[in-house]
Amino acid sequence: MEQSQRTEINTLGEFGLIERLAQKVTHYHPETVKGIADDAAVMAIGDQWLVTSTDFLLEGVHFDLTYMPLKHLGYKAVAVNISDIAAMNAVPKQITVSIALSNRFSLEAVEELYEGIRFACQNYKVDLVGGDTTSSRTGLVISITALGLTNAQEITYRSTAQKGDILCCTGDLGAAYLGLQVLEREKQTYLANPNMQPELTGKDYLVGRQLKPEARMDIIYELQTMGLKPTAMIDISDGLASEVLHLCKQSQLGAVVYEDKLPIEQVAYDTAINDFNIVPTVCALNGGEDYELLFTIRQEDYEKIKLHADITTVGYMTEKEKGAKLATRGESLVPLEAQGWNHFST
Amino acid sequence: MEQSQRTEINTLGEFGLIERLAQKVTHYHPETVKGIADDAAVMAIGDQWLVTSTDFLLEGVHFDLTYMPLKHLGYKAVAVNISDIAAMNAVPKQITVSIALSNRFSLEAVEELYEGIRFACQNYKVDLVGGDTTSSRTGLVISITALGLTNAQEITYRSTAQKGDILCCTGDLGAAYLGLQVLEREKQTYLANPNMQPELTGKDYLVGRQLKPEARMDIIYELQTMGLKPTAMIDISDGLASEVLHLCKQSQLGAVVYEDKLPIEQVAYDTAINDFNIVPTVCALNGGEDYELLFTIRQEDYEKIKLHADITTVGYMTEKEKGAKLATRGESLVPLEAQGWNHFST
Repeated sequence: MEQSQRTEINTLGEFGLIERLAQKVTHYHPETVKGIADDAAVMAIGDQWLVTSTDFLLEGVHFDLTYMPLKHLGYKAVAVNISDIAAMNAVPKQITVSIALSNRFSLEAVEELYEGIRFACQNYKVDLVGGDTTSSRTGLVISITALGLTNAQEITYRSTAQKGDILCCTGDLGAAYLGLQVLEREKQTYLANPNMQPELTGKDYLVGRQLKPEARMDIIYELQTMGLKPTAMIDISDGLASEVLHLCKQSQLGAVVYEDKLPIEQVAYDTAINDFNIVPTVCALNGGEDYELLFTIRQEDYEKIKLHADITTVGYMTEKEKGAKLATRGESLVPLEAQGWNHFST
Repeated sequence: MEQSQRTEINTLGEFGLIERLAQKVTHYHPETVKGIADDAAVMAIGDQWLVTSTDFLLEGVHFDLTYMPLKHLGYKAVAVNISDIAAMNAVPKQITVSIALSNRFSLEAVEELYEGIRFACQNYKVDLVGGDTTSSRTGLVISITALGLTNAQEITYRSTAQKGDILCCTGDLGAAYLGLQVLEREKQTYLANPNMQPELTGKDYLVGRQLKPEARMDIIYELQTMGLKPTAMIDISDGLASEVLHLCKQSQLGAVVYEDKLPIEQVAYDTAINDFNIVPTVCALNGGEDYELLFTIRQEDYEKIKLHADITTVGYMTEKEKGAKLATRGESLVPLEAQGWNHFST
């Protein structure tokens, strides 16, 4: 009888699945301040709050070793987890790294991967404290859990933005996605003719954003130094649109994002149009893997960031009823839609 | 040039690989009390100590869905992690569960898996607080991280046993391994003739030990109640021999384990001999997946546990130079050897 119904996962998508599974969860401990529904879980341990985030990276789904050097992969695997800790306004302390390997990987290959992992640990000052190591029947699988500390005063959630707050984002958007398109294109060229050299001239920035993203801990420390606590924060891993929608949903607000404010590098803009015939705005809104921070600040804090070279104000929060909107260059308001990275749809 | 050398992972094995990778690790935080080298990592957060353990479970490597119901798999995945928390003498608080699924899994299948996960969370009183969900090109992959709390006084390591301490183990050994042999045998019979019904009569205990192991949190709470703190502790996941060797290595001691003291259930004993022609001692020493606890106590604490129905004294710790030995029924001393579960050797 139980087997009589079959619902495909891709009818729900990743967020739908998580929401469905989270519904039935019970918490037993008063220490659990936050479970599923933010960038990290939260446990109150005395007056320090522990934040925990975990990510899965599977070969063939999240990375392609044809163009992803193992050292970069190790670095990136750590960075994307630290990015979640940053989004909680916490300081990373420890990570565990589990890997499953098929026997096509040699010890030298594993050491290259760990060189990248250790380099990231050094950069973000985080201690590699454990993990699990096993064999895999197929490709490489990496699972990383990052632990960070903050406290009740400093922690930032997705759910605490207020109407009128200014939406800020760090860095620039869409370049990592375009870097992936460039790498995929060169891979196809190479597969068609293995004597062809990859043509990456002028695309270094894009390729670098894809292969070696950085978690924006620098911004977290800067905001702390200037005494500016965001009212809400999330990291941009699935594209700005998806993250704005998360902030809106959890804070029960709407938002307006201005198309002409989106921070897009010139090379990203040009490559989107000339190489791939994509609208640059779409890359910025739905590209994914930027690992920048999206946060909201109170209007009275605007002065503190308005001259910051690496923070852009992209919009503001409105009431829920107004929904999440993109104010286009053509001065019309269109619904902001998340494309996200639905791995289940492929 | 870097590619010129190729060392196969299986020349090192899992422990060798971990040791090799751990060598180069640097810690940056004074909060990190313990990294790689115990059942869990340790972070001091004020006067509470956080312990973190993580495990990978891969279809085709760690489990076979032909005979492992998804609900049991979910339960077991949690239990084996809680077992590591127990081995640190800590109380489990939170877990994160990441799953990678191929599209052969329906929503109903995932919900069955999570039913088992939630049931284990309820039994062990642990909060499911997050995870990651993604697609997989092949089988099911589960990665669980468990977080527990203890303190500087209560925590137990592998490295703190003393010469003369008594080696104790909980429950019985070898049954989970024999349960796996029974299930594998019935699978082969079924594959040869799908009309055959599996013959599990009288093997319920063995199969149950394989499919639904329990973490021994009950023993942890009991020891705390009786005011008995083990001098060292480890969970028995790779077979008693492997764990005794870990205690010896980390505590820089030797040990004697008495063959005739090994706790083996009658049905395990009989099945080993009659069904599989294996020496029962080998199942107890090298079987794996018992998820019992192995711990050492001071001799003066012996009175406290000597009548305990579920704790067996199996030997004692000696000086390092004497090595780890098995005192056989034939009254000879032979080196204790770990067979373990070297997934890389297959």
